[in-house]
This record gives sequence, structure tokens and C-alpha cells, in this order.
Amino acid sequence: MTDVIKVAVLGAAGRMGSEAVKAINSAADLELVAALGSGDPLESLEGTGADIVVDLTVPSVSEANVRYAVEHGMHAVVGTTGWDEEKLQRLRDLLDEHPETGVLIAPNFAIGAVLAGKFAAAASRYFESVEVIELHHPNKLDAPSGTARHTAQLIAEARREAGVAPSPDATESDPEGSRGAVIEDVHVHAVRLRGLVAHEEILLGDTGQQLSIRHDSFDRVSFMPGVLLGVRRVGSAPGLTHGLDGYLELD
Amino acid sequence: MTDVIKVAVLGAAGRMGSEAVKAINSAADLELVAALGSGDPLESLEGTGADIVVDLTVPSVSEANVRYAVEHGMHAVVGTTGWDEEKLQRLRDLLDEHPETGVLIAPNFAIGAVLAGKFAAAASRYFESVEVIELHHPNKLDAPSGTARHTAQLIAEARREAGVAPSPDATESDPEGSRGAVIEDVHVHAVRLRGLVAHEEILLGDTGQQLSIRHDSFDRVSFMPGVLLGVRRVGSAPGLTHGLDGYLELD
Amino acid sequence: MTDVIKVAVLGAAGRMGSEAVKAINSAADLELVAALGSGDPLESLEGTGADIVVDLTVPSVSEANVRYAVEHGMHAVVGTTGWDEEKLQRLRDLLDEHPETGVLIAPNFAIGAVLAGKFAAAASRYFESVEVIELHHPNKLDAPSGTARHTAQLIAEARREAGVAPSPDATESDPEGSRGAVIEDVHVHAVRLRGLVAHEEILLGDTGQQLSIRHDSFDRVSFMPGVLLGVRRVGSAPGLTHGLDGYLELD
Amino acid sequence: MTDVIKVAVLGAAGRMGSEAVKAINSAADLELVAALGSGDPLESLEGTGADIVVDLTVPSVSEANVRYAVEHGMHAVVGTTGWDEEKLQRLRDLLDEHPETGVLIAPNFAIGAVLAGKFAAAASRYFESVEVIELHHPNKLDAPSGTARHTAQLIAEARREAGVAPSPDATESDPEGSRGAVIEDVHVHAVRLRGLVAHEEILLGDTGQQLSIRHDSFDRVSFMPGVLLGVRRVGSAPGLTHGLDGYLELD
Repeated sequence: MTDVIKVAVLGAAGRMGSEAVKAINSAADLELVAALGSGDPLESLEGTGADIVVDLTVPSVSEANVRYAVEHGMHAVVGTTGWDEEKLQRLRDLLDEHPETGVLIAPNFAIGAVLAGKFAAAASRYFESVEVIELHHPNKLDAPSGTARHTAQLIAEARREAGVAPSPDATESDPEGSRGAVIEDVHVHAVRLRGLVAHEEILLGDTGQQLSIRHDSFDRVSFMPGVLLGVRRVGSAPGLTHGLDGYLELD
Repeated sequence: MTDVIKVAVLGAAGRMGSEAVKAINSAADLELVAALGSGDPLESLEGTGADIVVDLTVPSVSEANVRYAVEHGMHAVVGTTGWDEEKLQRLRDLLDEHPETGVLIAPNFAIGAVLAGKFAAAASRYFESVEVIELHHPNKLDAPSGTARHTAQLIAEARREAGVAPSPDATESDPEGSRGAVIEDVHVHAVRLRGLVAHEEILLGDTGQQLSIRHDSFDRVSFMPGVLLGVRRVGSAPGLTHGLDGYLELD
Repeated sequence: MTDVIKVAVLGAAGRMGSEAVKAINSAADLELVAALGSGDPLESLEGTGADIVVDLTVPSVSEANVRYAVEHGMHAVVGTTGWDEEKLQRLRDLLDEHPETGVLIAPNFAIGAVLAGKFAAAASRYFESVEVIELHHPNKLDAPSGTARHTAQLIAEARREAGVAPSPDATESDPEGSRGAVIEDVHVHAVRLRGLVAHEEILLGDTGQQLSIRHDSFDRVSFMPGVLLGVRRVGSAPGLTHGLDGYLELD
Repeated sequence: MTDVIKVAVLGAAGRMGSEAVKAINSAADLELVAALGSGDPLESLEGTGADIVVDLTVPSVSEANVRYAVEHGMHAVVGTTGWDEEKLQRLRDLLDEHPETGVLIAPNFAIGAVLAGKFAAAASRYFESVEVIELHHPNKLDAPSGTARHTAQLIAEARREAGVAPSPDATESDPEGSRGAVIEDVHVHAVRLRGLVAHEEILLGDTGQQLSIRHDSFDRVSFMPGVLLGVRRVGSAPGLTHGLDGYLELD
């Protein structure tokens, strides 16, 4: 028999946090024992018996939250951004002193997006050509998206390791820049369209064939299965895991 | 009873011409009465009884071929490029003297591509956002494709007429140019991928919905149904028709 | 200068109705003068000066609502289902007595879905093969969707009129029924997938080419532009119009 | 320095074989030392110094060809169908006597198709819903395709191992069978469209997100990179390998 896992959510009133509260309440094997907002002190966690802390707060407090959890024997699943190398190193040092505690820090909890990037990189060594298209709502301020940039980097790294040449391109004339961005030899195109949320498509081509891998995020609830996966596994993954892909079994 | 239409192909040894010869030979209502290569004189057409001349030659001889056809009472279907306004005006003047003769000059005989452009323009007045993606083999020298450029112009014209604002775009940072070309306010992206031939996708977005229209040309035989449509209709369309869309019924 | 159009919403507390209230409030050229729920009497409309009544109620009361509007000199835009031929005929008779009043009854207000069906039917006479795929959330009780069934009928009608043969199909062995439904000679496939809302794709194929037309409804707000289009045009379209396509200009 | 690999093609006059001859002739690291047609005796291979035999013949002779190769110290890459369990076991027994010789038997040499199946199976344990759509030319006699059937089986096996329930489906009414085939709990849809060759799409859905994996074979040359991969690796993979996926590195 599996015991129920006791979970505390920090940032429970935010957009991601409130979805996490709902998702945990809906999971039979999880029990929500605390839901803290920005005004609640960390000490509120005492006596809750929380096994896992889910941190969905803001960069300015995330490190303190996670350190508190680790120091009090709780594992942590972290979706807050802003974890630079300095913070990560301090956390690794702390985890060395707590060798049975696990922390997962994931920049993207959409399992499908993480898989799409992994699959694209794995396939890219077998195809002569590869390009990335990302599509988002038109209120987005930056282009291309961080996910697309990361996917291009994963692809470029896989192709370099396999000794694959850059994708062929005979273009001589492109006066308006229709060929898009080039990120480490990989062309990346950004589409902005009302009605969309966050989408990415990787196109791989070789003589006579094409492989297309596409991920669509229609709603931020798409991140919740990844959060729950993290909550269920972090307890058996001591140390620091960076990126949800470390928890995904692909074979 | 319908009489068989007698057809002569000029440029019959070329890539398009040889496909046209095959397509006409396969059509029960058409009879191939002449197939001329680059060395054959136009006078070879005499006595063949050709009703229609299909010109799939090169820019330097196309005008002379078409004028010869019109002057000898034959209709013409023309897929050769290079017809500038000056040549077109001379042809219109000639056709005024032959009011029962028809000429179709079409830059693209793929019916699906012509329909895709028409549909996209018609729909674009009802959607807040629209962008164009074209995808071709990596040996193509220019980007974006002429078809994508033409589609963007059709869309821009339809939106201007309907008083629709340009697609919204909050992008502030795009250091590598991932947002692609802007042709008359319409973003156009060009993908180059081994294994592809000629493809175009128009994406239209509005709150909560997306409409996508895509055309794929896998092979140049895709142009033949358009050539045959032209051959069958040019005889009942006196004067000059520019673009296959003039022959397509959409209601 | 255009006057502001005064609009009353019936069924304002429902899922569609509450979206309509929001959409009308956001439109500068429209003014919401009444929002009635199921308990409010129609007489509440008196003195509001409403030009247009939007009926988004339930089949049992929709006819009475629309008749009340017409008898009191208001045009009506109706998204409620259940209008059978008998009700429609009674409404036509009533409109004969009010020749300046317009009523629009539309089974689908997503402009993109209406366009997709029209485009598919128009294109289908030029392609040897055509099939329809619809994709919905897995809680849907019936398959295929009413929209896909309607699209297949539009296609079948267009092909019959143009004398096009049914799509070729050499299938001899299909023990599990993978070829899907056949609706008036058109194959229709239904996919059910968690995360989806309402989607339809029409695939048209001919030698060497494919034309694909796809509509995605991500959210019921996608119906609002169609509702607003109806509100703005119904006043200048006397009599009964059935289907939003009657208001869409496609050339 | 890598030595050139010497390759003999059996079935060199067939559709696949003639493509293989071209592909090997175009590869700098491979040398074609023999190209045998159906009338040529196997003894023609003597003295050619072939390292690898590529068998692209017919079921009735494939076993004899491969046994001859193994007995004469040559590795074999086999694309011929008809290898039932009895033949495979006889081959395994023979290979036990030749422990340094490798044989690859692959039902599908399109690398993209093999990857699509593997990726879909790996991802399917993380998604509540999954369905398969295959699309082929309308001259195909059986539905669904063997590849789609195989993909459904891979998915079903991966989901059973991970303890994932069948995809949810509330359908109560489907009078015409639009929901398609059900292969081991996975819905499979078959589309037949003029202009297509061989295509497969796997759709995976979960709350708020979709992952789509699609493979397009436009031409049988798409099988050649897989054949060349087999030729290059079979020499260092002793024993029998069934399926090209055994040679693909995915991490």
C-alpha cells in the first residue's frame, strides 16, 4: 500500500499556484496540507507534516523557501524562475548536507514540450534538414520563445556530437528576412497569432521524407501533470535535478 | 455530343511540356495533334487542325508563339513566365482584332495553390491575425517564394478594402529576426527542408479560434489538372484572362 | 456618423449569453441595454429602446422570444438550437407581416468553421479525393460531430452538381473499420482526445498535390465575432436568414 | 582511416534494389562490388570481396540468399518481407555457428517512421489520450496500414507496462462507425487520398495540451538512408537484429 503524500503549496494564490492547489486536491494519492500566499510566514508549515513543498512564487523569495524546506526535511518541486548558477551552487552545497532530500527545479512543466525537445534532438542526427517554428499569442514581448531557443540549442548540440553538417540552404536572395532567426545554425521562425497560447513545431527533412513533432499548450493547466509527476518522484530522487526531463523515462 | 478538342503543345520536350503531352494523351476528350520541340518551326502547326495551343516554352519565344496562334485562329493556354505589361498590352491589342479568340496566361497552374490564395484573402477580413509560411526544398535560390509573396499581397489588399487593421504584434525584442519578412503588413516565413517540394500554409487567428489553409505540391504533375482545365475552358473565354482563378467557380 | 446599435441579450446568465454580454460591452459601436436571465419577463425589454435582441436561451422558449422581438419591431440574432421546419415556417409567416425586420438563426457562430465548410465544398469539385476528420474532447456523446456531418453534406452536394465521382478507394480488407464513417460518399473520421475542444480538418487530394483546410475552436469566445457580425448586419437583412454564411462576403 | 565497405546488392533490378544501387554508388565510404538480378546465380558473389550483402528480393529466395551470405562470411541487410518465426529461428541457429557475423532484418527502412513509432510509444505513458491516423494513396488494398497497426501495438504495450488506462471516450452514438478501428484499445483511422504516398500521425492529448508526431514518406528513396545506416552498422552488430530501431541511438 502506498501512503498518501502530503504536499504544501507556496504561492497558492498565484495563477500557477491556484491551479496546483486544484490539481493536488483532485489527486487521490496526494493530500494538500498547506496553501500559503505571499503574506503567510514559512513557519506556517510547521506541524503540517508536509513531505513535499511546491514552490510557485517569485524569484525574490524562491531560494529562501527552498532552503527552508530542505533544512526542515522536506523535498521541493520548484517552478519559479530566476535560479542562476550562484543560487544553484548554494543549493547543491546545502543538499550535500541533506543527502536524502531531493529538489526538482524545472523551467517548463509541460511534459509534452519537454518530450518534443528531447525527441527533436534525438531525431535530428538522422535528418539532413531541421527547422523550428514557434507560435504564440500576439501579446508576447520577446521572439523567439525561450523554449524554441532551448530546442534549437538541444538540436545543435546533438548534431555537433553526431558530426552532422548544418542544414543545407541555397538561398541567395532574401531581401525581407523571411528565413528567420539562426540560433546555433538552426533556423527558428516565430509566428504571432490571436487565439493561440504557446505552440512549437520541429520539422525534420531528408530525401523523400519528413518528420514533424508539434506541441500545443492550450492552457496553463497543461503544466499540472508535470507538477504532479515531480511531486510523486522527487522523494526518491535525492540531490538537485534540473529540468523535468530527468524524471521522464523514454525507453 | 461534345467534340474532341484538338491540342498542340509547344515546348513538348521540356519538363512541364512532357507532362502536358502525357496528360493530354490520357484525357478522352482531348486529342494531341502536335508536339513541338525547340527546333520545330511554328509552321508545323499548319494542317494539324489544332483548336488550342499550349505554350510551355521559354520567355524569349513565348510571345511570338501566342501571337502566331491568335493570328491563325487558335486559342492559347500559356504557362511560360516573362509576360510583362508591355507584352500583355500588345497581346490585348491583337485580341481586340480577334474577338472570338481566348488566351489564358497563368503563373501557377496548381489549382490547389490558386484556391488557397483566394480562400486566404477572402477569410482574412474576418480574422484579427494572419501570417504566411512557405516551405520548399533547400535548393531554392530566393525567399520568400513568389507564390507566398503573391498570397501576402492578396491578403493585404482584401484587408485594406475591408478596413481591417494590421495583425497585432507586441514584439519588443527579436534580436535574430525570427519574426520573418513583412510584405505589405503580412508576416511571411520561409522554411527550407530536404525532401519538400513546394508548400504554403496560411494561418488566420482570432480570439479562441484558428483557421489554417495549406497547399502541398509534391510533384509537377500537380500542375496538369490546371492545364487541362485551361484547355477545356479557354475556347469559351474570349480575350485575355490572367491567372487561373478567373476560370475557377467558387460558389 | 454611425449610430450606436442598442442590444438586448436573452439568456444572459448562460455560458454563451455571458460571453455575449462581455463582447457587446467591449464593442464601441454597440450598447447593451438589457441582459435578461431565465426568470426575467420579456416585458422588461419595454422602454429599453433595443434595436436587436440576441437570443441565447433554450429551445423551449426561443420561439416565443423571437416572435416577441419581431412583433415589437426588434431584429433578432438567434444561437439557440431546436428550430425545426415548423417553427421556421411560422416565423417566415410572421416576418411577411413585418417586411422590414430581419432575423438570423445560426447553428454555428464560429466564422472560421463556417468558412472552412464553404471553402471545402467550393474546392471539392476540383479534387479527385476528399475526406473529413473532426477532433473533439472525449466527453462528447455523439460521433461524428454535427458540423462534420454538415460539411460532408455540403461537399457531397457540390460534387454531385459538378458531376465529380466519389473519391477513389481500392480498400479490400478493413477488418476493424479503420476507414471510418461514409456520409453521402464522403469518409468522415472522428478523433476524441483530452485537451481538445472542437476541431475540423478537410483533406483534398489530387495527383501530386493536397489542399488542407482546418478550423480549431479553442474556446466558446470564438463564437463572439460571429455574434457581433450578426448583430451589426441583421438590421439591413430583412426576412429570415438561416446560417451565418449568408452574411459572409467571399469575393 | 576507415576502409571502404564493399557491398553487393541482390534484387538490384527491382524498385527498391535499383534505388539501393544508386544510393551506394553515391556514398563515398561504400563501394558497390556486385549488383545481381533475379537470373544471376549467388556464385557470382565469389571473388567480389563483398563485406555486406543487401537483400531486396522476394520472399521465396530471401532465406537462401541470407544463409549463403552468412555461410560465406558476409554480413547481411535484409528488406525483403516474409520472414516468419520459423525462418528467423533457423537463421539464429546458423548465426550461432558464425558468432562474428551480423544480420539486420527490417520491415521498414524509413528512419523517420521508426522514430515516430518509438517516440509515440515513449510519450504515450504520459498522456491520457492517444489515437493514430494513417494516410495513404487510394490504391492501397488493406486498412489500416501495417505500420499504423504496429505503432498502435507499441503504444498499447508501453501503456500497459506503465499502468495507463485506455483513452477516455464517452461516445454513445456513432451509427456510421466514424470512430474507426480499435487495435489493442488504441483508435486507428485510415485516410485514402489521391496524391499521397505513406503518412502516419500520432496524436497525444492531455488536459490543456497536445503532442503530435507525424511522418511523411513522399518517395521510396526515403528508405535509402535507413539501408545505408544498416550497411554501415551491421558489421559491428553480430547476431540477428530485427527492426532498424535496434541501430538508432536515441539519447
